[in-house]
Amino acid sequence: MSSQNRVDGGREASTNLDPLIAARLKRDAAGLFPAIAQQHDTGEVLMLGWMDDEALHRTLTTGRCTYWSRSRREYWVKGETSGNIQRVMSVALDCDGDTVLVKVDQTGGACHTGDRTCFDADMLLGSEQQR
Amino acid sequence: MSSQNRVDGGREASTNLDPLIAARLKRDAAGLFPAIAQQHDTGEVLMLGWMDDEALHRTLTTGRCTYWSRSRREYWVKGETSGNIQRVMSVALDCDGDTVLVKVDQTGGACHTGDRTCFDADMLLGSEQQR
Repeated sequence: MSSQNRVDGGREASTNLDPLIAARLKRDAAGLFPAIAQQHDTGEVLMLGWMDDEALHRTLTTGRCTYWSRSRREYWVKGETSGNIQRVMSVALDCDGDTVLVKVDQTGGACHTGDRTCFDADMLLGSEQQR
Repeated sequence: MSSQNRVDGGREASTNLDPLIAARLKRDAAGLFPAIAQQHDTGEVLMLGWMDDEALHRTLTTGRCTYWSRSRREYWVKGETSGNIQRVMSVALDCDGDTVLVKVDQTGGACHTGDRTCFDADMLLGSEQQR
């Protein structure tokens, strides 16, 4: 794809995301919105990533949760390198249209540290078992 | 409090947040980070709000989940008006220090629409019952 078709250092300027969904989305100044990944059966909140329209389109159509990596500035199919993939079970948009909740079936740990979730290591208050 | 002590149209310029926590936080350009509220026992993801250091401090010390309202530009104790409060059970910071997960006991609906969660109304994919 030519550079004319990319914005913001790598994001796709055009996307096949359903226009009816795109019309309901609210994005930040960088064109992104937060995506919460939750294990579908246990309810564990696994991680929060960021998506743009194209990442959401890929998540909805490929069955693999796909984010926009703000640090690497590239699309990121979760687990593509580590094998710890997220199989997409459902996707919901919130009432404000500015956050998505993706229920997934997580293979292995969601966190790059190897932990099951990104919220397991740094409890600021409370001591109950994370779920 | 004088205007000299406020930033960004209302946020507190100073906070009593534990400096050891503040040092681990990563904030966006507006000084904010996303906070996921999850029902502690059922695992329902209720909503995503935004916090700054002072909102996190209040959440950690008052037992009531407190956000920064980006639209109203003020601190917002969830349920203060509606009665649908969020009693704080635990707070965890993620591996990157840029998202918090607050487990709460939600009274009534979390969503301003009256729904139990903010993710109940607009399913983009899948049809399983939200939890």
